[in-house]
Amino acid sequence: MNKVTSNAAPAEILAGDFKAALKLTAEAVNAELDRLLPSVSEPEGYVVEAMRYAALDGGKRLRPFLACAAADLFDVPRTQSLRVAAAVEMVHCYSLIHDDLPAMDDDDLRRGRPTVHRQFDEATAILAGDALLTEAFGVLADPATHADGNVRIALVQELAQASGAAGMVGGQMIDLRAADLDLDDAGLRRLQNLKTGCIIACACRSGAVVGQASSERVEALGAYGIAMGLAFQIADDVLDVEGSAAETGKATGKDEAAGKATFVSRLGLEGAKNYARSLADDAVAHLAPFGAKASLLKEAALFAVTRRN
Amino acid sequence: MNKVTSNAAPAEILAGDFKAALKLTAEAVNAELDRLLPSVSEPEGYVVEAMRYAALDGGKRLRPFLACAAADLFDVPRTQSLRVAAAVEMVHCYSLIHDDLPAMDDDDLRRGRPTVHRQFDEATAILAGDALLTEAFGVLADPATHADGNVRIALVQELAQASGAAGMVGGQMIDLRAADLDLDDAGLRRLQNLKTGCIIACACRSGAVVGQASSERVEALGAYGIAMGLAFQIADDVLDVEGSAAETGKATGKDEAAGKATFVSRLGLEGAKNYARSLADDAVAHLAPFGAKASLLKEAALFAVTRRN
Repeated sequence: MNKVTSNAAPAEILAGDFKAALKLTAEAVNAELDRLLPSVSEPEGYVVEAMRYAALDGGKRLRPFLACAAADLFDVPRTQSLRVAAAVEMVHCYSLIHDDLPAMDDDDLRRGRPTVHRQFDEATAILAGDALLTEAFGVLADPATHADGNVRIALVQELAQASGAAGMVGGQMIDLRAADLDLDDAGLRRLQNLKTGCIIACACRSGAVVGQASSERVEALGAYGIAMGLAFQIADDVLDVEGSAAETGKATGKDEAAGKATFVSRLGLEGAKNYARSLADDAVAHLAPFGAKASLLKEAALFAVTRRN
Repeated sequence: MNKVTSNAAPAEILAGDFKAALKLTAEAVNAELDRLLPSVSEPEGYVVEAMRYAALDGGKRLRPFLACAAADLFDVPRTQSLRVAAAVEMVHCYSLIHDDLPAMDDDDLRRGRPTVHRQFDEATAILAGDALLTEAFGVLADPATHADGNVRIALVQELAQASGAAGMVGGQMIDLRAADLDLDDAGLRRLQNLKTGCIIACACRSGAVVGQASSERVEALGAYGIAMGLAFQIADDVLDVEGSAAETGKATGKDEAAGKATFVSRLGLEGAKNYARSLADDAVAHLAPFGAKASLLKEAALFAVTRRN
């Protein structure tokens, strides 16, 4: 990745370097996912095509970027960090497939393309999600990820913890029941942390784990990820409102239309923006032990709250 | 587990000892699953209840039995083999939840109880399956499963390989497309091996892996599992036909009604029974290296083709 020079203060230059690094990581992880999910000519190849369709979809690859940037702090070879990044992204992609299903959010489009159950069918989408989740653990367990089995099993523990009932799946469960739960601010923050924060933090932590970092450094990057993830989510909610206002002339977006509580609905637009900015500052503070080497991660936190899409 | 004395030739005595051992394992793995999946009072506890509903459902626990019996060959402490057994069973239970979904087999009942999506709802069922699959890897990765991280990561590799697109999920994909595929005998055998054989073999192999067995012994137990799994599946198909004949007076069961090719439809009832018996013999032959210590596994293979339910 590009390194930011210490005097590159203006926001555009920082953002430029970060965006270039994000793009480079996206290209590298796309190639890695393409390699890790080869097409299969056997009859079950249909589910592999659905996995590939979902995984090679042109997303921003924020989680892979965070995994690679965290691993860079510990000089992890790119061949290893890309496998960790790809595994985390597989879990993210599986969660999107299942979240889009008719029984969940019932979305027909994602990033302008038909969702997996629309492009293939519902059964294949369920199976493709299942297989991507399974493959993520297979990738981490493979000796190519790290020669030391203790490192690989620590990565498996991180991913299982972040993505199961006590993490991402638990967050999705709360989200589905949110209308009945009357969540307070702490409850809403917990929902967001579980649903999206845990896996973002997992990306950061896993980069440190594959770098055999001390537990203090793993925790610091995890805390960065939780703060960064919540800032990113609140910025999403802000964009949902401001984007709609610009495009449709209405002041409300799909979250409000769906009756979903967000930090925008609780704190107002300015309050939510301020909260996101303070979270980005929190995230950056957790990077202090890493000094200038963590400048890309710092930019990522600032990008999370200044992006326009 | 009870040991079978070498002169216990009569089938009833053998079956009695096996059945007693199967029942003991089922009770022990039920307790283990109950312990590994504690209820949670937080809002996401709803998905945990669904996981518990699915996992604590009174199944035969054949896969846990095989994992424990294989581990017994290598004198693995029961505390360790039960964790391996519980992990494999979690994957089996997740696969049943997802297979029962409306988009898949659309079943309302399983073992006389409403299926998970009928008892809870479809979204919760999808999430409960996802979380059980994730938790299975979390259980294997936990140091309580084995002190050596290299053993635990080998278990993760076994489970990921057996349950993903190149294993169980791939088999389910083929099964869903079977009507369009015009499978020959080899294709049907491959479907069955992927859909049910791989995870049964995984149970056997994992018992050996947690016992740090040589790769030859792991392979022997895996070969036993594949033959045993196919025998078990064909016996299921036979029971589907004979059970229906006894209960309904019709000579055909739900497989034939659903237009599904089985070894019964291909080989006829007697041919299928003979094939299952020869597979059970194959399975038993793979146990030769283990001598009398493998008598329960031998019985399990014979039980697979002589059971009445």
